[in-house]
Amino acid sequence: MTDPKGENAFPTANCRAAIENVTPEIDGGQFAVKRTIGERIVVEADIFADGHDVLGAVLKFRAESESNWTEIPMEFLVNDRWRGEFTVTTIGVYFYTIEAWVDHFKSWRRDLKKRLDADQDVAADILVGVELIENAAKMANAAETEKMKAWANALRGEKDSKSAGALALDSEMAEVMVCYPDRRFATAYDKELRVTVDPALARSGAWYELFPRSTAVAGAHGTFKDCEAQLPRIARMGFDILYLPPIHPIGKSFRKGKNNHRICQPGEPGSPWAIGSSEGGHKAIHPELGTLEDFRRLVENARGHKIEIALDIAFQCAPDHPYIKEHPEWFLKRPDGSIQYAENPPKKYEDIVPFNFECEDWRGLWSELKSVFEFWIEQGVKVFRVDNPHTKPFAFWEWCLGELKRKNPELIFLSEAFTRPKMMYRLAKLGFTQSYNYFPWRNSKAELTEYFTEITRPPLSDFMRYNLWPNTPDILTQFLQSDGREAFMIRLILAVTLGANYGIYGPAFELCENAPREPDSEEYLNSEKYEIRRWDLAAPQNLEGLTTRLNQIRRENSALQSNNGLKFHPTDNEQLLAFSKTSDDKSNIIFVVVNLNPHYTHSGWLDLPLEEFELEPSRTFQMHDLLTDTRFFWSGRRNYVELNPHRLPGHILRLRRYTRTEHDFDYFL
Amino acid sequence: MTDPKGENAFPTANCRAAIENVTPEIDGGQFAVKRTIGERIVVEADIFADGHDVLGAVLKFRAESESNWTEIPMEFLVNDRWRGEFTVTTIGVYFYTIEAWVDHFKSWRRDLKKRLDADQDVAADILVGVELIENAAKMANAAETEKMKAWANALRGEKDSKSAGALALDSEMAEVMVCYPDRRFATAYDKELRVTVDPALARSGAWYELFPRSTAVAGAHGTFKDCEAQLPRIARMGFDILYLPPIHPIGKSFRKGKNNHRICQPGEPGSPWAIGSSEGGHKAIHPELGTLEDFRRLVENARGHKIEIALDIAFQCAPDHPYIKEHPEWFLKRPDGSIQYAENPPKKYEDIVPFNFECEDWRGLWSELKSVFEFWIEQGVKVFRVDNPHTKPFAFWEWCLGELKRKNPELIFLSEAFTRPKMMYRLAKLGFTQSYNYFPWRNSKAELTEYFTEITRPPLSDFMRYNLWPNTPDILTQFLQSDGREAFMIRLILAVTLGANYGIYGPAFELCENAPREPDSEEYLNSEKYEIRRWDLAAPQNLEGLTTRLNQIRRENSALQSNNGLKFHPTDNEQLLAFSKTSDDKSNIIFVVVNLNPHYTHSGWLDLPLEEFELEPSRTFQMHDLLTDTRFFWSGRRNYVELNPHRLPGHILRLRRYTRTEHDFDYFL
Repeated sequence: MTDPKGENAFPTANCRAAIENVTPEIDGGQFAVKRTIGERIVVEADIFADGHDVLGAVLKFRAESESNWTEIPMEFLVNDRWRGEFTVTTIGVYFYTIEAWVDHFKSWRRDLKKRLDADQDVAADILVGVELIENAAKMANAAETEKMKAWANALRGEKDSKSAGALALDSEMAEVMVCYPDRRFATAYDKELRVTVDPALARSGAWYELFPRSTAVAGAHGTFKDCEAQLPRIARMGFDILYLPPIHPIGKSFRKGKNNHRICQPGEPGSPWAIGSSEGGHKAIHPELGTLEDFRRLVENARGHKIEIALDIAFQCAPDHPYIKEHPEWFLKRPDGSIQYAENPPKKYEDIVPFNFECEDWRGLWSELKSVFEFWIEQGVKVFRVDNPHTKPFAFWEWCLGELKRKNPELIFLSEAFTRPKMMYRLAKLGFTQSYNYFPWRNSKAELTEYFTEITRPPLSDFMRYNLWPNTPDILTQFLQSDGREAFMIRLILAVTLGANYGIYGPAFELCENAPREPDSEEYLNSEKYEIRRWDLAAPQNLEGLTTRLNQIRRENSALQSNNGLKFHPTDNEQLLAFSKTSDDKSNIIFVVVNLNPHYTHSGWLDLPLEEFELEPSRTFQMHDLLTDTRFFWSGRRNYVELNPHRLPGHILRLRRYTRTEHDFDYFL
Repeated sequence: MTDPKGENAFPTANCRAAIENVTPEIDGGQFAVKRTIGERIVVEADIFADGHDVLGAVLKFRAESESNWTEIPMEFLVNDRWRGEFTVTTIGVYFYTIEAWVDHFKSWRRDLKKRLDADQDVAADILVGVELIENAAKMANAAETEKMKAWANALRGEKDSKSAGALALDSEMAEVMVCYPDRRFATAYDKELRVTVDPALARSGAWYELFPRSTAVAGAHGTFKDCEAQLPRIARMGFDILYLPPIHPIGKSFRKGKNNHRICQPGEPGSPWAIGSSEGGHKAIHPELGTLEDFRRLVENARGHKIEIALDIAFQCAPDHPYIKEHPEWFLKRPDGSIQYAENPPKKYEDIVPFNFECEDWRGLWSELKSVFEFWIEQGVKVFRVDNPHTKPFAFWEWCLGELKRKNPELIFLSEAFTRPKMMYRLAKLGFTQSYNYFPWRNSKAELTEYFTEITRPPLSDFMRYNLWPNTPDILTQFLQSDGREAFMIRLILAVTLGANYGIYGPAFELCENAPREPDSEEYLNSEKYEIRRWDLAAPQNLEGLTTRLNQIRRENSALQSNNGLKFHPTDNEQLLAFSKTSDDKSNIIFVVVNLNPHYTHSGWLDLPLEEFELEPSRTFQMHDLLTDTRFFWSGRRNYVELNPHRLPGHILRLRRYTRTEHDFDYFL
């Protein structure tokens, strides 16, 4: 009743409980909370009523396909805060809400106890209770109805006030009564909150980005078949997703040359992001890569290696994309009748034509773009990396991703939006499964601690799932340029351990490729975006071994497959970053210590909150370094760490509580 | 489009701007923001769109009686945050909301500038602009349409790209264009947020609570006429509101005696909160106080002294209240057929019968209770103090206060709910104008600083207006019991300066009455709740002088009439509390320093953020103590303070920037 209009505009029912401040709830319920299959949702709310009565409250949830709610009793915590939780067990959409009421039976029982403790006569109170019991009996099943009626009769018959009191407090009967509260005046929370439940691969996966055209063994243009030959190596390294830059025909007019040169020399392959030519557009395959049949086989064979193929969807056209002739109405026309190419004034990108999402036929354009996803879904693709989603309308993504996930809830969409935080958050809220983030530019202990503390806690963690990329074809960070192999090792260990999802652009990454096109640039020299590269996988700096070991550790340690349990710990050296990850069931605890300085050995003392990990201050525990299989014997809060970046800049320590002592010998007794 | 059901369920319009995180907004717009007449509402929101276009945004507001919105352009702050503000100028309800859009003209102009700076040919771009101008011209008034058309023609005619560019950037014409943005695809924020605008007296007022029955000069039962005789004294002390405990007939059965004794001696007057007898109920006047006519005259005469009479509305009955016979259905019946009296098991309150707000005829009961307010409103009462609202349903208050304020928006309701914080907040949200709070039990510097920092900032400050009471007839705090006059002076100075609204229960307060009924009790010995008291206003400890001075200072300093500008400042002595209050227009700045220890003199150094008050570090400024008319010459950040509680435990310092120097002499030049 927010704005009563007429005299005596009474509320529709006399409900006394208030339900406020429900968490999680994204923007007042406008957007869904994200979870992956098997994860819990802990729901809390402020629940209270006037006066001093005892309340009851249930958390109600259902999968979208179910018509009935499942109810979970909520527990009172403190300061009018209540909590309940449930686990999502099917992919798709769930709903949850709350109901709360004044529980007259519980209030009566609490008060009766106090009266009996004060030796008061409770004859009249017993009769009040009998009425409550008889009313509840009407709602119960036959067997319980009988029990409750018998109880009520016994209470009515018992003339001794003390004995009646003891009988009235019967705890077994109280447990029956609690199942049949009078909920006629229950307050229903006025929103049904949504959860998007994604597959486990959305929660945790290692991505490997690869240009298929650079996979040919000899000098030729690589094909999907060459790419298939890479699958065993990629699988052996432990990657879950193989992500390919756009695989469509590459535009020929205004094609860019080597190192983004404006003039393209004959034979140069152009950028895969300049999509479309007379050979086809977003639903076609670049002829030199192979056929649609080849692509389908790649997807299938990859799956045989437990690898999903991820496609890059970049909604932009080369000037010779078929759409431009077939649908000139989808593009902005200049006053001279030509099509408006991409610009960031005063810069011009004449090899790219953007769609005009505001055109008159926006519905036609949007439908066609959705059908691009649908086409590749039909070819077996379940994972998409979306290029620059922040330059297309939010409403388009909400509609498009909503429609796609409604039919294919197992789909995964990675948002490549390197832009201002609120735009990135919005894209996550309206449907993207995962998001790139600012990890590439967070290097110092303070930066990493602050940033990862923020993004692993609600509200962000409830709707935004990050995917950490130490490099991409567009991003060769200054840190990676700063030193050779050591810098790459540092960033790889951080990505693998801080991110349940992470990815590398290889083989540039494993091979520690770190030459920029020019000083202060983040562009690669001889970038694969504009030319075919030959990678020498036998080169001594190859980090394949470390990568393989790290991915193996990820697979064996559930703590690293989620970001829920991340916590930073103090060290007395600003170059030493220490954090722990704990699995939801607390059975797996991993401590990571990284020397953030690629140049020098650093040592220091780590401060551990023993009580949080249920460690006794007086007892030795083992820290088992999973990278080197070394076992450190630690005790107490403060322990010493020393890391030489030229050997290995990090520890990944699994806590092993048990350390053998003389008590373990049979003959000790 | 939260849950698209059908294929191609497109959004209704292609709107690109997103509006998020609007402040103020209470519980997603469920409840109104509170302001008083003349106050500002600063509205902020995250506003952004895809891509790089420039946005426009307006804050829209209207009084409920107006059908058209007034629009205020919003300004971009930083990090996608925008701000606009408006002032509420009539009592009642206001609405506000936001609209935002992609502004193609502004984007075009920004880009054109960049192109010109880079010496590019802009001929085609000029033509794009001409189209934008011609479209805008269709929306403008006749004079501006002509101007815009002429401009467009001139642009079209100018063949030199450079000159055309300069003409296109004409700033005067840009200002015209900004008034006619193309808002066809503007995003309207999906909520209209409410403001309750209360009279100025709701923002700032000094309350004086008085038992009329104790106002007779000789031994008799005081009457409204005796009460009238007190008006000059109360007005002289500077109070705005005279609040009377319940004035209705007092129940006779189970009437309480002196000091809450179960047995009442003949002639004892009983508690005014035991309402109703054969002489009448909530709409009647206790015969010994006078007639309804007398009461109306009291209200009128008080108004002559610029004092409003506040009534205490306590929705509970004495056992002989007429309602109990006339409407037994409004009370809970016990199994033996008797009416259920009030209890807090195992305690019993047989002199009080609570209403059963959950009874079958709850609509009848609620209507009758609302009519109690209406009856007294008809007698001229505009201010109500509501007793224990937290023991009546929230929905009742939301409905009852909503209906009353709809017809009488000038009404003020003070909620006497000393209960858990979330219940107090809820009562404030659903319509109470002011709230008692935990001030009586906040004594230390840390407690006061933490508590008042919390309650003077959003979200609390947007819906909860506090009223500070150092004592009430129910609350004689341990601090007031701890020492005599000094403790009372400390609490009075704090109440007057920390609270734009405050009140005292007098004359107990001025006379420093501090004897508890028993040790550790907060009840007064010989409480006026149960007996008629004679107060010796000529007693030497009377704080009337200090009270008068404090209220005068309040009236003369607008900074003390609002809680918006409260800020605490560090001192190096834990017994010295320092804070400042700054008026909205920053013209009035008051510094308060209080020695919280009633026993000993304390001194220390106060740390002032000079830059916030625009004070130069090198220049002397005056701190004018308004309590003693002493002028302190301070300079720099750190200044010395010493307070002897036996003299006066506080400074109320008005910042006077100007200090005379030799430069002020005529002959200095």
